[in-house]
Amino acid sequence: MSSDINYVELLAMTAAILEKGFSYNGAEAITTARVLVEADARGIPSHGVSRLNFYKMNLKDGHTHPGNEPKITWETPSSIVVDGNGGVGPYVAEFAVRKVIEKAHRTGVCFASVRNSNHYGIAGYWAELMAKEDMIGLAFTNTYIAGVPTFGRFRILGTNPIAAAIPEAKGKIFLLDLATTTVTHGKVELYDRRQKPMPPGWVVDENGNEITDASAFEKTFYQTNYGGHLFLGGAGEESGGHKGYGLALLVEILCSGLSMGACSLLTYPTVGNGGITHFFGAFKMDLFGKPREIKAHIGGILTNIRESAKAIGQNRIYIHGEKESEAREKALEEGIYLDKATRIMLSDFCRKYRVDEIEGLVDDV
Amino acid sequence: MSSDINYVELLAMTAAILEKGFSYNGAEAITTARVLVEADARGIPSHGVSRLNFYKMNLKDGHTHPGNEPKITWETPSSIVVDGNGGVGPYVAEFAVRKVIEKAHRTGVCFASVRNSNHYGIAGYWAELMAKEDMIGLAFTNTYIAGVPTFGRFRILGTNPIAAAIPEAKGKIFLLDLATTTVTHGKVELYDRRQKPMPPGWVVDENGNEITDASAFEKTFYQTNYGGHLFLGGAGEESGGHKGYGLALLVEILCSGLSMGACSLLTYPTVGNGGITHFFGAFKMDLFGKPREIKAHIGGILTNIRESAKAIGQNRIYIHGEKESEAREKALEEGIYLDKATRIMLSDFCRKYRVDEIEGLVDDV
Repeated sequence: MSSDINYVELLAMTAAILEKGFSYNGAEAITTARVLVEADARGIPSHGVSRLNFYKMNLKDGHTHPGNEPKITWETPSSIVVDGNGGVGPYVAEFAVRKVIEKAHRTGVCFASVRNSNHYGIAGYWAELMAKEDMIGLAFTNTYIAGVPTFGRFRILGTNPIAAAIPEAKGKIFLLDLATTTVTHGKVELYDRRQKPMPPGWVVDENGNEITDASAFEKTFYQTNYGGHLFLGGAGEESGGHKGYGLALLVEILCSGLSMGACSLLTYPTVGNGGITHFFGAFKMDLFGKPREIKAHIGGILTNIRESAKAIGQNRIYIHGEKESEAREKALEEGIYLDKATRIMLSDFCRKYRVDEIEGLVDDV
Repeated sequence: MSSDINYVELLAMTAAILEKGFSYNGAEAITTARVLVEADARGIPSHGVSRLNFYKMNLKDGHTHPGNEPKITWETPSSIVVDGNGGVGPYVAEFAVRKVIEKAHRTGVCFASVRNSNHYGIAGYWAELMAKEDMIGLAFTNTYIAGVPTFGRFRILGTNPIAAAIPEAKGKIFLLDLATTTVTHGKVELYDRRQKPMPPGWVVDENGNEITDASAFEKTFYQTNYGGHLFLGGAGEESGGHKGYGLALLVEILCSGLSMGACSLLTYPTVGNGGITHFFGAFKMDLFGKPREIKAHIGGILTNIRESAKAIGQNRIYIHGEKESEAREKALEEGIYLDKATRIMLSDFCRKYRVDEIEGLVDDV
């Protein structure tokens, strides 16, 4: 079995692939490599370096234009609107978030709406950058179409994730990062591969009927835009599917609405740029009192919840962000787990673009 | 059958009951009556005038103190912290929201965290007030304990609703208002009365096991704090229950965390005040460009969704707030529907507090 990969080596190799093979410049490469490797380190491989294939496709299809600089097109003391100019998604996001942080330090609060961007990796990474500055951080994005509105059958909304990060006691950060769809598409693919029926509430077929047969669903998924993911709460209104759909709509309005950008349906057009839109917000904890006291108070509330009675058969109640930060700590110490397909993909890129391959990357895979 | 009730007459009678029977002052009475009657008009009777019984109980138990004025205890150009001083919930909320709107008009954005308040009615009402000023409006609140965290069995969080209101085209407002629990308790009571099994994903019993027998659940619900509502997505993580729980935690942190107030578990103590906490936020649309253009753009996005293909057997895809605003329009024209129990309750209050009863209130009920 191949051993886990050192964080810094994976970061360097990923950045080198992006620079030599994807014609990203140095800043674009390191920012993108960072957010991908962070996802793998946190145990979110769906948004890790395996995404290089998708990023390569975005390049070939003319959706991502390395070297294109984002521009601020509207500015007030507490806001910016950014035109990403079809540039590299994480680079555009970094530009917007750095500016938001800088302005929020001055005025207490800043928002950014961003249009004409591309996939920016895990939303939580961006929200967390703001929380590290003693701010409440918000990061939303629309995505390629995936979800069907309540009572609909056409994929017209993205997975539209919501991320929020809030500093709490002892330097910890409450970090919520959720797709507003019940599950992401990777979960459906997994059930298809394992020939396992999906639970209800995940997807509807091209007629808008709930189905649990993952293989049947996968067969038609890429052929038409009918049928797709349900939002949190599932089909109809009985168990709150309309609520999840509403959260996705909220994200859509904040991202594509406020930026005058493309809605999920119009992202990744045949020509131009990815058209992905984001929304960021940061507001300082000292808007509400002394940050140290507030963080201790939040810590107390969360500790009460952690320590409350467990369901029979369960031994832990998690606070959001804990699983990921524990996985990250372990990965920094022991290395990052990558699956076989990802290792082979990386090795192929290294060979093709003459990048030094990490020793043992594909041993015995 | 009794006829539906005129909006203005119901408002006046409700305010009179609050003034004569609950010792609310004039401003407290009219604000409270307004948010309750608005809920009935919008087809949300669970938060309508039927709540007078609950508000009366809050008075008797020493949780609500009419006449107590809210105070600003911390202020920056873009924020206030309000101590509700145990006052009337809607009056405290109105005080905070008016101040938030006033400050946001000056600086572009303002937040309020509020502690020591009481139940404030439908969250959406407060978010909508901000949206009417061409702002994005946010209103969150914690509540009496109702919900159990993922993998838990102790009720430690409220229903913790999220409301967001955003102006769109033609004077319309996107208005999202959702309890982060799968359903509110009224739904469970309804299934109990009808002896109908609940769908999975609504509640867990005192051991933390999902149950669908509403009557069995109701029997133990008021005896202990074990067992309670699941959050949006249901039990466990498979269909996203941890996401709904995370949204409830986010609300809890923004409300009780940032205000240094009581978490849901510590609301309604044996002495003192209700201890309910709120969070409000407003930011102007002109932070992002010309409001008229942005609203038209949002309107286009929402129209696309309204007009997208319906599931077989469905004929409408709703945008959030539409059902309620259509119900409200009808109620203003034709009157507000009130059920028999609510009419009798109102009539009893009128008799007891010498308030003029609306003609026909209890005819044939």
